[in-house]
Parts: sequence; C-alpha cells; structure tokens
Amino acid sequence: MARAALTRLVEPGDAVVGRWLRGLGPVRLHRALTGAAAPPPGASTERLAGCALRAERLDPAADLAAVARLGGRFVCPGDLDWPRQLDDLEDGRPIGLWVRGTASLRLWALRSVALVGARACTDYGTHMASTLAAGLAERGWVVVSGAAHGVDAAAHRGALAAGGATIAVLASGVDTPYPRAHSALIQRMAEQGLVVTELPPGSHPTRFRFVLRNRVIAALTRGTVVVEAQYRSGSLVTARRAMALGRATMGVPGPATSALSAGVHELLRGEGVLVTDAAEVAEMIGGIGELAPARRGPLVARDALPPVTARVLDALSAQGGSEAREVARDAGTSRDEALRRLHELLALGFVERAGESWRLASGDGRNGVIRRGDP
Amino acid sequence: MARAALTRLVEPGDAVVGRWLRGLGPVRLHRALTGAAAPPPGASTERLAGCALRAERLDPAADLAAVARLGGRFVCPGDLDWPRQLDDLEDGRPIGLWVRGTASLRLWALRSVALVGARACTDYGTHMASTLAAGLAERGWVVVSGAAHGVDAAAHRGALAAGGATIAVLASGVDTPYPRAHSALIQRMAEQGLVVTELPPGSHPTRFRFVLRNRVIAALTRGTVVVEAQYRSGSLVTARRAMALGRATMGVPGPATSALSAGVHELLRGEGVLVTDAAEVAEMIGGIGELAPARRGPLVARDALPPVTARVLDALSAQGGSEAREVARDAGTSRDEALRRLHELLALGFVERAGESWRLASGDGRNGVIRRGDP
Repeated sequence: MARAALTRLVEPGDAVVGRWLRGLGPVRLHRALTGAAAPPPGASTERLAGCALRAERLDPAADLAAVARLGGRFVCPGDLDWPRQLDDLEDGRPIGLWVRGTASLRLWALRSVALVGARACTDYGTHMASTLAAGLAERGWVVVSGAAHGVDAAAHRGALAAGGATIAVLASGVDTPYPRAHSALIQRMAEQGLVVTELPPGSHPTRFRFVLRNRVIAALTRGTVVVEAQYRSGSLVTARRAMALGRATMGVPGPATSALSAGVHELLRGEGVLVTDAAEVAEMIGGIGELAPARRGPLVARDALPPVTARVLDALSAQGGSEAREVARDAGTSRDEALRRLHELLALGFVERAGESWRLASGDGRNGVIRRGDP
Repeated sequence: MARAALTRLVEPGDAVVGRWLRGLGPVRLHRALTGAAAPPPGASTERLAGCALRAERLDPAADLAAVARLGGRFVCPGDLDWPRQLDDLEDGRPIGLWVRGTASLRLWALRSVALVGARACTDYGTHMASTLAAGLAERGWVVVSGAAHGVDAAAHRGALAAGGATIAVLASGVDTPYPRAHSALIQRMAEQGLVVTELPPGSHPTRFRFVLRNRVIAALTRGTVVVEAQYRSGSLVTARRAMALGRATMGVPGPATSALSAGVHELLRGEGVLVTDAAEVAEMIGGIGELAPARRGPLVARDALPPVTARVLDALSAQGGSEAREVARDAGTSRDEALRRLHELLALGFVERAGESWRLASGDGRNGVIRRGDP
C-alpha cells in the first residue's frame, strides 16, 4: 500500500527517491513524504512541497481497487511475481509496477526481448518489426514494446498475430491508453498479454515519462532490437541503456540512404549487433541453449510455477500433443487462460508447440531445474 | 623479359611457382620451365607438359611491344613503380603486372580503396557504389574495382564522373576488355586512370582467373568496401581476403529483405565494419591523418616523385590556386597529363583541390616526409 502510494507521490526513475527508499523502506518514506514523520534527510523544500500537493489527493486503496476492477494488480519488489532483473536499475528501480493481464510478469520477462523503433517508420520498418515479432513469438519469446505508433505497434501486432505473448510498457496509467488510437490494441494486450506501467491509474504521459519508461523496457528484457531510428532518437537511448545494463543490443539494417535507418546504422557502427531475422535475434539473447537445442532446459524449477500454470502443465500428456481446449478442460480453467499459461510454459522451456498442438518438451524439461547463468 | 614470359607460362597466384621464383629467380625459372635447364625441384610431369605446350607460342618481346603500342608497360617486383603492398601475398604475389595508363601505379595504390559487389546489383547498389566512389575520389582516394557489370562499373563511373582517379584490375589481358560491353569504359580508364592485370595480352578470363584477380584487388588497396553481395558471392571472398591481409573490410547495409544485401550483412555480423558514406570509409582507411587533418602529411618523400609529377608540383604556386591548364603550361605537359599528376599529388597529400582550382597543401605537405606506419 505504501509503495502504491509512492508511485503517485513521486515521478518514476528518481534516484534520490530510490536512495531514500533503500534507507527508510516504503512505509517510513511514505510517512516522511506526507508530513506524518520528519522529512527524509537532505530533502529540498521544493521537493517536499511537490509531494505535499500530490499527497492531498492520495488514495492508494482507491487506486488499487480501480486497477483491480480492470483485472489488474500492483507488483512490488519482494513479490513472487516481481521481475528481479529490474533490480539492475539500482536506485532507479521502479517503486512498483501496475499490471493488467493474468500472466506471470516474472516468468514472461525471463524470456523477453524488446523491439523498439521510430513512430514515423517506413513500410519496411513496419514489415521488419511485425516479421521479427512473429518469428520470436513462434520461438517462445515474449515481445516487449511501448505501444507507440509505428515500430512498437507493428511489433505487438506481429506477436499477437502469431498467437504469441507480448508486453506493453506504458508511460501512462494502465487505464489511460496512449496513444488513444491504440486503445483497442492495448485492451487486447491486457486480455491476451500484459500491460505494465510505473504510473498510477489516471496518469498521462509526458516527454520525461517516455524517456524513463524506456529504462524499464531495457532492463526488463534480455535484449533490445532497434528496427528503424533516426539520429538521436529515443529508441537509441533505450538501446544504449540496454547495453549499459549488459543486455544484448541489436539493430536491423536498412538502406544507407534512409534517414530512418541512420540511427540504427550509428548503433551498428558501435557495439550494436546487426540482425536480419528472428533466428539471429534468438541466437543473441538465447545463449548456449538456443544454439544447441539438446542442452536447452527450463529456466525455473517446476515447484516455483504459479498454481494454475502448474495445473496446466500437469494436464499435458507425456505422450502426443493436446489442443488448448483439452488442456483447459483437464486443468479446470478457460481456454484463453490455458493458452496464456501454455505460452508461459513455452517461454520457460517446459512445453513445445506444433501448430495448435501442445506437448511436454523433450529432454530434461519435465524435471525442471534452474539453469545456471540465466537471469 | 623473363617475368613477362612467365606470366604466359603459368597461371596467376600459383604458390608453387611463387616458391620456385623465390628459390631460382625469374631467369633461371624461365629456363627451367621452357626445357632450357633442368626442371624445378619437385615439378610434376603434368605441370611441365603444360608449360611446354605454352612455351611453343612464347614471345615476350612481342607481348611487351603489343602492350607498348597501347601505351602500356610491364611492371615487376623491384621496379620503382611496383606496389610493394602486393608483397603481402607472399608466394602468391603476382609475377608482374601488365599496366595501361601513365599514372604511377605505386603512388596511386598507396591511397586506394576497393569498391566491389554484385554484378546483378539493384538500383540502390548502383547508387551507393557511384556515390561512394565520387565521394572518395573527391577526398583524393583512388577507387579500385574489377570493371564488371553492376557495382564495379558504377564505382569506376562514379570516380570518373567526379574527375577522380580509378584503377581497373582485370582477369583478362589489358588488350582484351571484359565484359565486352565495357570496352569503352575500360578504354577510358586506360586513358584517364590505370588498367592492370596479371595476364599477358590476348588472355581471356576464366572463373578461376576471376577468383585470383580478387586477391590482387584485396592486396593492392588499403581497404575493401562490399556494396551489395549475395551469400557466398565472390565479393565476400575479396573482403575476407582483405581482412586476412590486415586491410580494412567494410560493407554497405541494405534492407534485411534484400537477397543482394544478405552477403554484406553476413560480413557485418562478423568483423566487417558498417559504412554508409565516403567519410566513414575514409575514416576507416585513412588512419589518424583522416580524423586529425592537422597531422596529415604526404605519404612519400618529394624526392621520390617521378619527374613529370615533380614538375607539376613545382608549377603550383605557393600563393592562390591554379587551374589544370595553367599548371600544364608551366610544367610543359598536356592538360590531361597534368590532371593525372595532380590527382597523384592530391592522393599523396602534396596538393589540395577546390573545384577546378589546385594549390599546395597547407601544413607540412611542402617538405615531404615519409609518414610512419603507412604502407
């Protein structure tokens, strides 16, 4: 509750707040910023005044209820579903994440890749974003992007069209889709994928919030692919952030004559790796497992799976494949829910998919071991 | 004369012949391969029989005379005009080079760059090859290519159109232009640039000769740029050869959807460097001098310049610029000849060009020192 309140009191990605949070913990920091206790050490008058203004309309219980009505929830550090790779952001780590969608954010993020790029992209950019996203989804990767016009939307749509999993990281509230033209797309992701944001319900995006949102995309995923970007674009900031965090950083080449590829080429002249298809992306982010399928195993222990996911896994036959409808019946859940869980299990290496048919993964997938060196 | 004869007796790039040549010298090897002395140690019967057949029609004096009638000459290792970077090919070093054109092969090659790529290139490939060639020519770089259809021809034409210097390295005799459709282009290079080959007059190209020609392009230049290439194309062989010789290896990106860029992208996913314009190419091959113009000096000593080139340099005023016609009058040569020499001097850092006007380079260019670390 204190962390939910703090997401309304302060802006995302503020390292000063992160330091206070580390020193005081969320409950004491909440009290300190709302005047119920002495202010945090070294807090400026301006900052405290800003918090005081925001504190007037603070009602975290109402925020939590509003998001719950949309089928959403609030996930914080320490929760089972917290994606621990966000801790790499150190004092810039999100205070918590407002999430819509029932899939496990932690499990999906473990095998996710960001596709980002220009809003005003070319047809080529749209084509590459949707093709890469579809190819990655088919390989069991979760496609993460920002729900913006252009490359972002093409990436989300490509993943959805392939029946795959996708996460939108917004710079606004989960109930405040932006851009408005993507309300239906974002709604669809809330139902079939995940919609995630640091900002409390009702928040509108600002330029500053977009920039800070990008650090969450970079940190959440195992790698970032820039599809089209002009010089000095925000997508390049995301890519450089990913690189600084030790994540794979990739770019899709384009004509040297295209201003919309100039930023990507700049990245590729540095440390970015050139990729032209989903297999090349998977090779970069998949590590040894992707190159040598025989050594590929699940990313987490079977005992660590959420209950519904575990039931769906139990419902799969060790012999031939099953369709999602059969799995749902045996697991006692809806077909949509079963599909979501199957995608989680696919991403984690427990199951395999052939068209509409799902079966247990071959190899050591059934025993469930945590693979060394994974995030 | 012995080396000229050897170019007809054996095929280019034969390391066994190279070893014999190193052991026996050209005169004794010529005698050994024509039956006038004991055969070289370890020579196979087949090889000797092949040489004997070719020796029947051997007339190096006639070859030299034929090439001389075309304004050409034969340049061998040890000659003043021999490009010493070819020695990097070790036992695969050319026996000698048949050359048309009056410019200094050695001086031009010192500041040359290869542009290679697909014969069946796209309009984009043609555009990039000619634009890069023109930009490099304007910066005083000599553009080297193979006179083939597609990228090669676009590179030569781009350099010529910018009034720059260009070298064609053929896989046939200097009097046997290939492809035939490029007879006029090759003739123009023989007049305004250089046409070079390992093969004696009258030779026709074979697949094998094309492959071996590529090693000369790679070794002659300071770097190789691949403009468009499919998987497993000959241009990639040239690029890898350049890399193995320690030359800069570059590629121009294109759409990931284009089969004609797939080979280039493969190169760029390895050690090749992505380039999108002439400035980026120049930065790669120019070394420190290109990035820091203040430290740029001439590549050879003024005393080492050929006499006509030295007279052209003398004809330039230390004050303002002169047009080629004035320089020619003062140097006592034709305008075309003066222009060729001015391009040599430009490539070597002695002079600068502003449109049609030529003047002495600023900085230490007038004193003429050999710069350390240059080829």
